Amino acid sequence: MVKLHSSMFIGVQGDGIISFGSGQPDLPPPPEVYSCLPTYHDFKYGLVQGSEKLRNALALEYKGFTKDHFVITNGASEALDLVLRTVGKPGDKILLHVPYYYAYKPLVELNHMEPVLVRTGEGKIDYDDFEMKVHGVKAVIINSPSNPTGRVQEIPTLKKIEKITDDLNIPLISDEVYKDLIYERENYMLHGRKVITVNSFSKTFAMCGFRVGYLFSTDKDIVEKVITLKTHSSMNTNILGQEMAYHATKTPKSFIESHVKIWKERRDLIYSEMVKMGLDVWKPEGAFYVLPKIDDSEQFVWDMFKKHKVITYPGEWFGAPGHVRFSYALDSEKIKEGLERVEEYLKGR
Amino acid sequence: MVKLHSSMFIGVQGDGIISFGSGQPDLPPPPEVYSCLPTYHDFKYGLVQGSEKLRNALALEYKGFTKDHFVITNGASEALDLVLRTVGKPGDKILLHVPYYYAYKPLVELNHMEPVLVRTGEGKIDYDDFEMKVHGVKAVIINSPSNPTGRVQEIPTLKKIEKITDDLNIPLISDEVYKDLIYERENYMLHGRKVITVNSFSKTFAMCGFRVGYLFSTDKDIVEKVITLKTHSSMNTNILGQEMAYHATKTPKSFIESHVKIWKERRDLIYSEMVKMGLDVWKPEGAFYVLPKIDDSEQFVWDMFKKHKVITYPGEWFGAPGHVRFSYALDSEKIKEGLERVEEYLKGR
Repeated sequence: MVKLHSSMFIGVQGDGIISFGSGQPDLPPPPEVYSCLPTYHDFKYGLVQGSEKLRNALALEYKGFTKDHFVITNGASEALDLVLRTVGKPGDKILLHVPYYYAYKPLVELNHMEPVLVRTGEGKIDYDDFEMKVHGVKAVIINSPSNPTGRVQEIPTLKKIEKITDDLNIPLISDEVYKDLIYERENYMLHGRKVITVNSFSKTFAMCGFRVGYLFSTDKDIVEKVITLKTHSSMNTNILGQEMAYHATKTPKSFIESHVKIWKERRDLIYSEMVKMGLDVWKPEGAFYVLPKIDDSEQFVWDMFKKHKVITYPGEWFGAPGHVRFSYALDSEKIKEGLERVEEYLKGR
Repeated sequence: MVKLHSSMFIGVQGDGIISFGSGQPDLPPPPEVYSCLPTYHDFKYGLVQGSEKLRNALALEYKGFTKDHFVITNGASEALDLVLRTVGKPGDKILLHVPYYYAYKPLVELNHMEPVLVRTGEGKIDYDDFEMKVHGVKAVIINSPSNPTGRVQEIPTLKKIEKITDDLNIPLISDEVYKDLIYERENYMLHGRKVITVNSFSKTFAMCGFRVGYLFSTDKDIVEKVITLKTHSSMNTNILGQEMAYHATKTPKSFIESHVKIWKERRDLIYSEMVKMGLDVWKPEGAFYVLPKIDDSEQFVWDMFKKHKVITYPGEWFGAPGHVRFSYALDSEKIKEGLERVEEYLKGR
């Protein structure tokens, strides 16, 4: 078996291929997003911090924040990279909970920092382990709902994390890109003096390709430093992407509700099917991923792809060997068909 | 006088203000760029390396290169940041020639590297100084035509730089974003095993706000590492910006020629007027900047802005105190009017 990496699978299509791979909505964005295109004629640089109109619209959505607290970025990815480079320097330690979003660890390492890994139980943060390891780290990254587990952190845990990072004056980076896709309760947004929230239009509005994300914080020093870095590292985020994102903020709430309804149906389907198959699986509470335990996970991923035309991602990429990530961003018929192929393969193992 | 920084001036408009500040074309992009918008409906992630169609179009423009040598980036700024982070690590030395584009020095420093500054005479690289300082640097950045001087490096010097960096196996980063705006000769493109060329659609096609740039190199190791970093730091460049850039590559050459004609007329005007005013000034050979010597340059910039509503940038930002940068990306009437105000101010000093 060759070494697996994501470039083998991204964008792979073809007759009979069923992909549980890519973490992006298959349903299109709201039509409002395209409405500004036919008459668009701007071309000059925008503000590095992001369009005022868009930041004002975001400030309406988040109580207690003004347009000055926001920076619009090239997706949540750039927001995270900018924050890491702003709050940390080479040699610093950054706390992550495992399993983690696959980009966190390489991004920390590419910035010459060191990941400190905190345990979870069934995807929920082990606060004792967190408390022991948080001393001496430069920043903490929390991701709830989580990619790749679909799990949502418990509110009492989140409150304890708010308190201890505040007491220790440690920047708390909260990646909430799936905050609008929760099936069990409302999102609990992390708050605090040193909290930097990262979000995106990619998942809520199915706008992955347009790369419009943002970060916000009441810590003006961090916001200013992020703007300074972005002034030199990429300048403004694409002006037309920002205009489209602005129109997304004007979409009726029913758009998101109708999508969440579909995601929840798919979640129910894939979870109950996996339970029926006898897989050891944690119930996803948000996002659109599920991470069952599957032995010899890289071999499974390779065989399913080469022999059965089913794309999945090995848990190794997420710090979770012995697990396999399934994205359920595909329609119910394909979910069923894909799981049938998985069941057949596992029976024959 | 307060400390000057660029955020005081960017986007400043108003009655009677004449801006020689911003480095972006005032003339609009070719209409072809907007032609794809009314029917556009994509939304999914694109390839991190960039759209194949766009990379193929670029490969046609640059002989000896294929689509695999290119990475499409969020403007030349991101290309430069990605390359620096790929070829260097904290503590490494990066060679720049002075005056330099204002972002180079902070970008090198924000990446925890150290700039090594090489002298120029009237904007032309002093090769003896270059030769002395190139030993021990991790990479070299060459910018010809130059922002802020408008000067083009001599071909014999560029060939010597190609040879010595090749002999020493040092990556040679060539920022050629103004390559299509040269008034004196054809561009001489730097070539070599370790050359990474940075370019952009911003200046040639007046697309600054859309942030579509690119880098290319025959060094596959560097290209692969850039893609890996970008996978984690920002993912694909905005898919619609790339589509617009693709249409820009299909624009008739007459578009660029007609723009160059206008830039050259403005260059002739601003240079001859400055000579008439008795300013010590190097003749710009490309780009749309001129950098006359003006004593007490920060005070000049401040007074011209506050008292005479003329925006210019102090040479200090570019490593050139005692100089002032004028961008001539504005129409002839405004150039004349602005220079009259400058002349009047200088007479009264």
